[in-house]
Amino acid sequence: MERAERQRQLLSRLRPILGEAGLVARAAGFGPYESDGFTAYRERPLAVAIPEDEKQLRAVLQVCKELGTPIVPRGAGTGLSGGAMPHPEGLSISLARLNRILAIDPAARTARVQCGVRNLAISEAAAAHGLYYAPDPSSQIACTIGGNVAENAGGVHCLKYGLTLHNVLGVRGYTVEGEPIELGSMRGALDAAGPDLLALAIGSEGLLCLVTEVLVRLTPKPETARCLLASFADVAQAGAAVAALMAGAITPAGLELMDGPMTAAVEDFVHAGYDLSAAAILLCEADGTPEAVEAEIAAMRQTLQACGATRIDESRDEAERLRFWSGRKNAFPASGRVSPDYLCMDASIPRARLAEMLNAIASLQQRWHLRCFNVFHAGDGNLHPLILFDAKDPDQIRRAEGFGAEILERAVAMGGSITGEHGVGIEKLGGMCVQFSRAELEAFHAIKSCWDADGRLNPGKAIPQLHRCAEAGQLWVRGGRLPHPEIERF
Amino acid sequence: MERAERQRQLLSRLRPILGEAGLVARAAGFGPYESDGFTAYRERPLAVAIPEDEKQLRAVLQVCKELGTPIVPRGAGTGLSGGAMPHPEGLSISLARLNRILAIDPAARTARVQCGVRNLAISEAAAAHGLYYAPDPSSQIACTIGGNVAENAGGVHCLKYGLTLHNVLGVRGYTVEGEPIELGSMRGALDAAGPDLLALAIGSEGLLCLVTEVLVRLTPKPETARCLLASFADVAQAGAAVAALMAGAITPAGLELMDGPMTAAVEDFVHAGYDLSAAAILLCEADGTPEAVEAEIAAMRQTLQACGATRIDESRDEAERLRFWSGRKNAFPASGRVSPDYLCMDASIPRARLAEMLNAIASLQQRWHLRCFNVFHAGDGNLHPLILFDAKDPDQIRRAEGFGAEILERAVAMGGSITGEHGVGIEKLGGMCVQFSRAELEAFHAIKSCWDADGRLNPGKAIPQLHRCAEAGQLWVRGGRLPHPEIERF
Repeated sequence: MERAERQRQLLSRLRPILGEAGLVARAAGFGPYESDGFTAYRERPLAVAIPEDEKQLRAVLQVCKELGTPIVPRGAGTGLSGGAMPHPEGLSISLARLNRILAIDPAARTARVQCGVRNLAISEAAAAHGLYYAPDPSSQIACTIGGNVAENAGGVHCLKYGLTLHNVLGVRGYTVEGEPIELGSMRGALDAAGPDLLALAIGSEGLLCLVTEVLVRLTPKPETARCLLASFADVAQAGAAVAALMAGAITPAGLELMDGPMTAAVEDFVHAGYDLSAAAILLCEADGTPEAVEAEIAAMRQTLQACGATRIDESRDEAERLRFWSGRKNAFPASGRVSPDYLCMDASIPRARLAEMLNAIASLQQRWHLRCFNVFHAGDGNLHPLILFDAKDPDQIRRAEGFGAEILERAVAMGGSITGEHGVGIEKLGGMCVQFSRAELEAFHAIKSCWDADGRLNPGKAIPQLHRCAEAGQLWVRGGRLPHPEIERF
Repeated sequence: MERAERQRQLLSRLRPILGEAGLVARAAGFGPYESDGFTAYRERPLAVAIPEDEKQLRAVLQVCKELGTPIVPRGAGTGLSGGAMPHPEGLSISLARLNRILAIDPAARTARVQCGVRNLAISEAAAAHGLYYAPDPSSQIACTIGGNVAENAGGVHCLKYGLTLHNVLGVRGYTVEGEPIELGSMRGALDAAGPDLLALAIGSEGLLCLVTEVLVRLTPKPETARCLLASFADVAQAGAAVAALMAGAITPAGLELMDGPMTAAVEDFVHAGYDLSAAAILLCEADGTPEAVEAEIAAMRQTLQACGATRIDESRDEAERLRFWSGRKNAFPASGRVSPDYLCMDASIPRARLAEMLNAIASLQQRWHLRCFNVFHAGDGNLHPLILFDAKDPDQIRRAEGFGAEILERAVAMGGSITGEHGVGIEKLGGMCVQFSRAELEAFHAIKSCWDADGRLNPGKAIPQLHRCAEAGQLWVRGGRLPHPEIERF
């Protein structure tokens, strides 16, 4: 059957369910749905369904089941690896209208919310009870909790408070077949019975099920917070300071690293008060009771000094603390001001190797003739190098991709991962072939098949086909890099 | 083939690999291996293999693969749900000799250990660096980290520090086919690539893979700890105090509840200084810096008083703190002194319903004409009612099992789970049919099949066969209780 005919058939079935308001049927309306925050690749779906309740969603799933239509769920579309990019033969389902906060239970410290509720909206609703939802991805003003679950989203405070996985107690939703499922406990009870399907679903990038409702853990708002801003004359010292802080008794509420070029770009943009003479700066936060914060800040200051910090500023009030953070939070847009395009990498390494990675990236800049800004969730060993390039120049695109691939490869060789928090999506399919063996990838496919035997749910994302890995293996080798042991498996 | 013939064949293949020292081949030697800590059921395996290294283990797995022999892995045998009970046609593999601590990295705060290392031995080895391994099951002096991974073990301090799942960064091991696997990161890096198989393996009760090596997170030893012992005149008030404490800004390092009869039995045994006039007592701990402990203890004391505590004792020194805990830690043996036998239940409920459950158990004691002591990880909503009975009286056995089943059923009806931390094993197979729908159980079987298509790894444990659920459904209904919605699914 032709694509146009499949599209006509699908629309004729969906219109009675969704009405015109719940359906984007024309190509002219597809624009906002053609990608997520990873805009390098775009695709047009057959249609976009925007159900307003679970009843409509179930009916849509039933239609897709009958027609064998692939499904790509999406939340706010802020993902950074293309996980929500449409399938050309599929239906995109926006869950953004399922956006009600269903219950807040201050005694149990939980909130039950629909998947389309924005991350920050949960904290806003919980604020009256002195509570908040701890994971704070940069996109928290826009991104939805459903998307957070799909990506196991992190954020600058996840070092102390954990990722989405550690802050979600249960989810409700549907299989691709439209069967209702509940994973974990939607009433917040400890649950050790059966394999941990909740943990499996969190971070599964929309490949296993559609989540419509989430029970999140709320955290008491710390009474106070204070931030140190420490300068270092070289990046290796800053990396060593991170290792030293993390080896101490205190888990900072946040521990971020920015290198000199990144700092300069940011300072020019938001005037956060960063030290422009530093090769790298660390943002180092403590939160809790005033007494605890006092003690922790003193201990961290001592460690920073012992590690050779050339200057340490301490936030004197909340306004100054927020100003310190404003620089970090605007690192990505600041990069956009300096360069027409940038590739935001996401990788993780053992913390002890931060300095080594920074030095490696410095060399790679020479090799690929491209600049790179570095901003790291350093406490987690989670790297976000931003490779600057101009997408109008095909050779720069090629070099940026080669540079990025090489960073990922180094991360894997150091015992790290090709993604720390942004997921695989379509962006990192090649990297998966580097990080995992054939047997491991087969295990991932097998798990996917348990939930979605026909492969209709977000097909082509997150887990590469093995033949693709064979080609990717070739690509890595063609790139001129020494294949490390992982690659030789292919 | 006859069992004796299969046994002969298996032994003839294993002897050259393991030698006499690594093999228990005679029924006379099976005694210690016939059960784990759940001694109600016993079984004899074809043999017990005790490999001394991974090379031997791999060779044993190869033999079992060739002969199609079921495999039951075991650690120290301290499990409480029969997960390590042998299979009559299978080989039990004791991993107790894989007991080396391979590396402690104080800067990264990790320890890499073999699966047979005892839980407490990790903390002992890490003590020199001011670190310890936080999850502390009651059996921690004996139980192994491999068993902890299999059961996702908890402990009294998991309220603040998390379960095994939250303290393990990576595992290495083998599939039932003998293929090497590595899940999570054995170098401690954050890893968001691919489905979270590490989380799936933790708590999988030996059904998915054999874990031989574990990378655990170490935690800085708190500078100090202090404990409050609070008395309440009725159990409902104690339950309400737990909810109030957990609704506050402080997460206690431990929050345990014992009812009056339990307290009396314990006090008679270890003289912990418990208030014998109380209907229930709470143990409520704070740890951290002296300043933080001071502040947290003051806040918790205030909450306890506001909730009607009739007496609050505060540990004046470490000796007294340990004395307070000695009662809680000896609750099980103390019960053994009072009654020839006891059934240790394990269930979870939402914390807000603790008082309701305590009252329900009080009524059930009348109905079943059996006594029950209650000791709860109250902060987690994790219940351990101990049903006292005499196994020499078949009617008491029947009544104890009926009583226990009814507690589990109530827990599920309250939105809780049939197990909070002891696992399903063979003990709770019936309860699984109460907690989960047919579709959910099918999903569990599907996951199991991904790892172990032939069902040779710990068969018959943790996930009930659907036909068994049909029978169990009958049992529940025959028991005369109103079937709740979960049951009607069958």
